[in-house]
Amino acid sequence: MSSAPVSRYDIPELKDLPQDIRNRILQVQEKSGFVPNVFLVLARRPEEFRAFFAYHDALMEKEGGLSKAEREMIVVATSGANHCQYCVVAHGAILRIRAKNPLVADQVAVNYRKADITPRERAMLDFAMKVALGASDVDEHDLAQLRPHGFSEEDIWDIAAIVAFFALSNRLANFSGMRPNDEFYLLGRLPKEKR
Amino acid sequence: MSSAPVSRYDIPELKDLPQDIRNRILQVQEKSGFVPNVFLVLARRPEEFRAFFAYHDALMEKEGGLSKAEREMIVVATSGANHCQYCVVAHGAILRIRAKNPLVADQVAVNYRKADITPRERAMLDFAMKVALGASDVDEHDLAQLRPHGFSEEDIWDIAAIVAFFALSNRLANFSGMRPNDEFYLLGRLPKEKR
Amino acid sequence: MSSAPVSRYDIPELKDLPQDIRNRILQVQEKSGFVPNVFLVLARRPEEFRAFFAYHDALMEKEGGLSKAEREMIVVATSGANHCQYCVVAHGAILRIRAKNPLVADQVAVNYRKADITPRERAMLDFAMKVALGASDVDEHDLAQLRPHGFSEEDIWDIAAIVAFFALSNRLANFSGMRPNDEFYLLGRLPKEKR
Amino acid sequence: MSSAPVSRYDIPELKDLPQDIRNRILQVQEKSGFVPNVFLVLARRPEEFRAFFAYHDALMEKEGGLSKAEREMIVVATSGANHCQYCVVAHGAILRIRAKNPLVADQVAVNYRKADITPRERAMLDFAMKVALGASDVDEHDLAQLRPHGFSEEDIWDIAAIVAFFALSNRLANFSGMRPNDEFYLLGRLPKEKR
Amino acid sequence: MSSAPVSRYDIPELKDLPQDIRNRILQVQEKSGFVPNVFLVLARRPEEFRAFFAYHDALMEKEGGLSKAEREMIVVATSGANHCQYCVVAHGAILRIRAKNPLVADQVAVNYRKADITPRERAMLDFAMKVALGASDVDEHDLAQLRPHGFSEEDIWDIAAIVAFFALSNRLANFSGMRPNDEFYLLGRLPKEKR
Amino acid sequence: MSSAPVSRYDIPELKDLPQDIRNRILQVQEKSGFVPNVFLVLARRPEEFRAFFAYHDALMEKEGGLSKAEREMIVVATSGANHCQYCVVAHGAILRIRAKNPLVADQVAVNYRKADITPRERAMLDFAMKVALGASDVDEHDLAQLRPHGFSEEDIWDIAAIVAFFALSNRLANFSGMRPNDEFYLLGRLPKEKR
Repeated sequence: MSSAPVSRYDIPELKDLPQDIRNRILQVQEKSGFVPNVFLVLARRPEEFRAFFAYHDALMEKEGGLSKAEREMIVVATSGANHCQYCVVAHGAILRIRAKNPLVADQVAVNYRKADITPRERAMLDFAMKVALGASDVDEHDLAQLRPHGFSEEDIWDIAAIVAFFALSNRLANFSGMRPNDEFYLLGRLPKEKR
Repeated sequence: MSSAPVSRYDIPELKDLPQDIRNRILQVQEKSGFVPNVFLVLARRPEEFRAFFAYHDALMEKEGGLSKAEREMIVVATSGANHCQYCVVAHGAILRIRAKNPLVADQVAVNYRKADITPRERAMLDFAMKVALGASDVDEHDLAQLRPHGFSEEDIWDIAAIVAFFALSNRLANFSGMRPNDEFYLLGRLPKEKR
Repeated sequence: MSSAPVSRYDIPELKDLPQDIRNRILQVQEKSGFVPNVFLVLARRPEEFRAFFAYHDALMEKEGGLSKAEREMIVVATSGANHCQYCVVAHGAILRIRAKNPLVADQVAVNYRKADITPRERAMLDFAMKVALGASDVDEHDLAQLRPHGFSEEDIWDIAAIVAFFALSNRLANFSGMRPNDEFYLLGRLPKEKR
Repeated sequence: MSSAPVSRYDIPELKDLPQDIRNRILQVQEKSGFVPNVFLVLARRPEEFRAFFAYHDALMEKEGGLSKAEREMIVVATSGANHCQYCVVAHGAILRIRAKNPLVADQVAVNYRKADITPRERAMLDFAMKVALGASDVDEHDLAQLRPHGFSEEDIWDIAAIVAFFALSNRLANFSGMRPNDEFYLLGRLPKEKR
Repeated sequence: MSSAPVSRYDIPELKDLPQDIRNRILQVQEKSGFVPNVFLVLARRPEEFRAFFAYHDALMEKEGGLSKAEREMIVVATSGANHCQYCVVAHGAILRIRAKNPLVADQVAVNYRKADITPRERAMLDFAMKVALGASDVDEHDLAQLRPHGFSEEDIWDIAAIVAFFALSNRLANFSGMRPNDEFYLLGRLPKEKR
Repeated sequence: MSSAPVSRYDIPELKDLPQDIRNRILQVQEKSGFVPNVFLVLARRPEEFRAFFAYHDALMEKEGGLSKAEREMIVVATSGANHCQYCVVAHGAILRIRAKNPLVADQVAVNYRKADITPRERAMLDFAMKVALGASDVDEHDLAQLRPHGFSEEDIWDIAAIVAFFALSNRLANFSGMRPNDEFYLLGRLPKEKR
């Protein structure tokens, strides 16, 4: 549908990329049916690409006290606060799918305080916003708000680290003019959609 | 799908409303297939209801230099800046339909500077954001940015007045906990959708 | 005294206005001894004029739990926060008259936290400032601060709606360069003044 | 008229003050007809009192390129930006008298960008606001905006130093809850008033 | 080491200065081994110089409930918040010496919330930051946080007055481009250093 | 000297760490004479540790148009803006060493606009601050300010990516209460120091 460029930087050709990076891209294409633009934009710098996705996977694909939907919810709230179009649109789609909820991503992106979320999720996002926008003021009082909701010390690290990683990711996307793929906008919105 | 309340205030019964308000609500229901919650929430105060929609229609339904899609684009950008969930979701749907573009509303809500919009639309939204967030500093220099894009003095008034009206509307919706109808989220996103 | 223009937009001639608008203007002139410039600036758009004043009167002239002086106090604090010269000067005059207090308007406009006001008025203005400047964060906690001071749910709506209406009004005045009439500055300041 | 306390700190008795401070207070009382509360609040600390008024007089009573009305205009704009009730009300009165203009103080306090001031005064206040609110960013570019309006290097120092002195004064007044005398509110507002 | 100018304003020759100012400068030179640039920059205006240092000494050299190290800690935190290079570097050196602690100045300048300070010092700096950045909101609640830590009403005035004085000083230094002497950077950092 | 904990999270024992991480830590200890705390705090999460340092090295150790001192200058300015004590102190030391300049790190941390830096460095840091604090507004105009100073498109990516990486790093350090080692404070300050 759209012909706007994927980024203000040129995108490398798949054939010119190192084998491991080409493999990762082909793998995501097979799974999703398209290549999310973040893979194409970052591929021009193989070392940064590898570190970025290793970090991403360590935080987003791990087991632990946070569900995968909760992790994506943190990403969407953080990216909304940072006005990052790529991450709100792309991770909004993933959140809809993982939470099996077609509404929650738009709600969290605009104003998580008005979203249909649980008190646990609300506490998680209040803390996430503190790390996103005022990390220099985080203290024990902030952590104490999380524990009654069942978050362990490791879960709290996870929340903070996801926010921190997307502080990086949102700035890269905003700086490089990274454009979300058209496919993301509709993903997870239709009742019969499967995954 | 959702059972969360429509507002923190009780919603009156349709049968208890004054005739003109009941008529307006039945009319919008017939046209849209559902009653947008803003009509229900405001109906408890008939005089304010009448003034609100008279003002809304005077700005949004009028003829003039701004297209209806442009007017809705101003609403979505303003409501994004004010973190108003009801207005971003509801007017995002109307913008998708009026612009015949399933992507633009999400783009404008998150970060209009990265949206697929024309230079004219960009100038319009830059000015709208100045009125939304820093009206006390608006001066001739701001207006001068608009004229090369073909905006007349009356168009400029329209832009500013739409922003001002949604400064009101966004605050009412945020204060009253006005919940967007589930129907809005998907409207205008599917290629075959007609109106 | 002053010869600066009333607005950056031309002011229509009284004789060219629709009958109802002309009548309203003549009525206010008879009551006040002069025509406040807001009537002249908005008269160029009759439909918006009618909606604006219908909304204004519904909020400011109604009976209810808030006194008229309290309503004006909300307007002055909101307009101070929005740096709106027209509304601070014009409604400051009305507040002085309605509160029979020549000092309170200047105090509230500069810093309501230091004004000679009651705890009830302080709570009312704290809430008003939350709606004016951070409506997206308003929650039950904010409303709970008001109830011990005798504010009903309808009074709370009134406070929020007055702030929201002046969010609109302040932006229109600031955008259009609406100039307060010289007469307002001295009104309500002299001990013997009657109304 | 008012019985609210002059400050959150006790006010010393005139008879207990050092001779030089008592003289200064009696002198201002004779000239003004009342003792501005700033003299009473600061008198409890004689050394700070002497340094404060020595600094004040060095900046506000000196000869130089800035008129006395211009100096007071800087004070009112600075004090408005700092929401200092004492200084807006007290120096607003002095500005009205020195500028022989009953309107300009209220205009400058609320929004100097909309005030009836000359381009020279506008440039002066733009620079003053930069020093008041963002001194760490002041650079040669800011100073260059002043020179075409006839401000010398010494005048520029005067502007900055007055803003800096009232950064001190406004914080002292806000912290100590310094209350403006009732007499200030009406001073300089009546056409026949002499001085 | 450095050849950058001491200020954007010319520095007077010592021989051209009034006797009392020359004496003060020679005295500080004898004590410190160099002349801190603030003395040279302000000397061009003798009356302001005298008032500035009289005020400084009244607050910083007095006896009272605050230790001299605590006073310097307030200066460093305030100057960090105001991004004033001269005052952070110069008073950071004095703080290191007075607190006999080579680390605390850098910690307080960057983020006092993470510094190795006592709960009493933390409460003192929380209050100082409120006066520095939001004096218009200071109220009894803020003062009440200080009393359990042993601060008297006079100590509280001292804290606020030091912040207020450096609100002035930081703006003067930032505006005038006052450069810290190279000597300050290393003072108080070496374990064997004596004073 | 200090006994405050290294972080609010426990630090693993070196012997319990995976071989590659232990090796990296021993290697830095040999080179620097101590183990910077960031290695100890992150080691508790081996996968994140590896990704973090891979990313760090890809940006900070690479060849390219930016000198190593310029890269560290970006880190110090970013970390100052984010009030990150660990990164200002640790990278301040590295900057002093790499720039062979004992003053520049403190200057850049407090206010880079007043630092002794070249116009090229000033442009680099202006852009870095835009990415750090307002990435959602970055546009072609910002990039255009860099090119006249000799920055290539790849250099611009480097600047933005370093800022983005330290947006992550600063949040991790602030959240986890990461304490800078005492050794950093004095590094690079003494004239005879070698490396």
